[in-house]
Amino acid sequence: MHVLITGAAGMIGRRLTERLTRDGALHGAAIDRLTLTDVVAAAAPSTAARVGVATCDLAAPGAAARIVADRPDVIFHVAGVVSGEAELDFDKGYRSNLDGLLALLQAIRSTGDGYHPRLVFTSSCAVYGGPYPDVIGDHFHLTPLTSYGTQKAVCELLLADHVRRGILDGAGLRLPAITVRPGAANKAASGFFSSIIREPLAGREAVLPVDDGVLHTHASPRAAVGFLIHAAGLSRHDLGDRVNLTMPGVCCTVAEQIAALRRIAGDKVSARIRREPDAMVMRIVDGWPHRFDAARALGLGFAAERSFDEIIRIHIDDDRGGSVG
Amino acid sequence: MHVLITGAAGMIGRRLTERLTRDGALHGAAIDRLTLTDVVAAAAPSTAARVGVATCDLAAPGAAARIVADRPDVIFHVAGVVSGEAELDFDKGYRSNLDGLLALLQAIRSTGDGYHPRLVFTSSCAVYGGPYPDVIGDHFHLTPLTSYGTQKAVCELLLADHVRRGILDGAGLRLPAITVRPGAANKAASGFFSSIIREPLAGREAVLPVDDGVLHTHASPRAAVGFLIHAAGLSRHDLGDRVNLTMPGVCCTVAEQIAALRRIAGDKVSARIRREPDAMVMRIVDGWPHRFDAARALGLGFAAERSFDEIIRIHIDDDRGGSVG
Repeated sequence: MHVLITGAAGMIGRRLTERLTRDGALHGAAIDRLTLTDVVAAAAPSTAARVGVATCDLAAPGAAARIVADRPDVIFHVAGVVSGEAELDFDKGYRSNLDGLLALLQAIRSTGDGYHPRLVFTSSCAVYGGPYPDVIGDHFHLTPLTSYGTQKAVCELLLADHVRRGILDGAGLRLPAITVRPGAANKAASGFFSSIIREPLAGREAVLPVDDGVLHTHASPRAAVGFLIHAAGLSRHDLGDRVNLTMPGVCCTVAEQIAALRRIAGDKVSARIRREPDAMVMRIVDGWPHRFDAARALGLGFAAERSFDEIIRIHIDDDRGGSVG
Repeated sequence: MHVLITGAAGMIGRRLTERLTRDGALHGAAIDRLTLTDVVAAAAPSTAARVGVATCDLAAPGAAARIVADRPDVIFHVAGVVSGEAELDFDKGYRSNLDGLLALLQAIRSTGDGYHPRLVFTSSCAVYGGPYPDVIGDHFHLTPLTSYGTQKAVCELLLADHVRRGILDGAGLRLPAITVRPGAANKAASGFFSSIIREPLAGREAVLPVDDGVLHTHASPRAAVGFLIHAAGLSRHDLGDRVNLTMPGVCCTVAEQIAALRRIAGDKVSARIRREPDAMVMRIVDGWPHRFDAARALGLGFAAERSFDEIIRIHIDDDRGGSVG
């Protein structure tokens, strides 16, 4: 089986590459070829599979056609810029988050030889816009209030139509906040949900720009990779016409996140969080959906963590080699 | 004021041109220039305004930039192919119904000189996909089950984001079935809703391919033009972030349509409807939404007919010079 990952140099792309390399197979089929693309060079893993690394912008002329020329069986389309960047740079956001998928769909359709891959697309809960009910169910309408959310919602619609038309199989996964993000902060306004855990564990101070009572839904990077892999095993029959799904996660307040950190790492660590309210971040976060009823995804076997404690432990295992700083 | 109509050679485009020519003004501003574009040549009306006719495909390179070069103040974007055609010809549908608007938005944004037109876009109730509640309210989610509906839903999202970003003002109007369509049938599977009225009134037999009990929502071509003009007078403040609106209409069964025809034109005319069930048309029509609660549009002052009798009388006035055949 030939697997293609777009956005392979990004956080989720790297974790997915590691997992597929470790597993050596996807839903029972051995992976004998792995193609990694991104706008920057992705690191090629050591693996028995033949690995190709392509540094390209999917939206550039001919790029998508070149990467589907070797007929990957499964495509994980993870490429894209984050919400803050898409809002700051209108052109870059549309090019990366919309034109890339458009080019990929067009390239797949243009092969004209019966090529029919499975495409798993990372959407986002940013497709939702307020006002919200207390719990957002699978039938809540999409009225995004950011360019990022708009781009993801458009991609969902295009993916669903291409699946319906029999051009490919696929699923779009609305990811909750991915917590704890490792490494340096990116431009997402949601960054503090991760940094208030990651930085204190690393012995550094973290700034909390919102109230303790802010409610949000989280899944670990490991869970996100699990979602992608699980989706690659679902058929069109499993999914029906609605191929875009809200993923499950752990819904908790910031206070509950901090309490979990204290339980796991002690008072000294959790005391490294400094409260410094930021009106702009508070306003952005207020506009986000908080809690989901991911009934369809759960019914289809997608699984997230059960507690924020578990999310912290996964961060400690996967990013800190088991050590609590 | 300079007004641009795309799709000006189509049925709605022609009616809108006639209405604007007759009015000579739009919301109190005199129309001194009118630009008509379509892929076929639109007829130039006799009017005091300076009229330009441009035969072009909006999605062709440079076409959209050329038509916004003269900075139309109001753009009625009515261009597009109908549902049946978009389903039969994947490329043509996406090119006409999606790439055209993408090019227009890009051209407007690229002017870079503070140009900020108002754009009124004709969407469709095909943005909805089943299963449906009995009545579809303003907050029902969009899960289109046709390429046409997908293209319209994508355009709605793009329009909303461009309005939110301050690039233009605008509104998307989800039109119900436009009945009675004059002239020859087009490729829409909904054609019979019009032909069972139009053909008997013209002394010809009409075929009814569905059951009498089929429920559908209708507005006249005159009402559709009224929606477009009304929308051009609404500000961003009126519309808020949700700039796409389901338009009102008359919800009735086919039996009620026929009863209205009989009341207005007599038994001899209504007897010209021949029942010839068509399983494919029935299946398509079954998948459509039937009834809407267009509360937001009604609250914003959009008005449709109050009965199907009124819709037939408008057809007799506007298309038959008042004569009942």
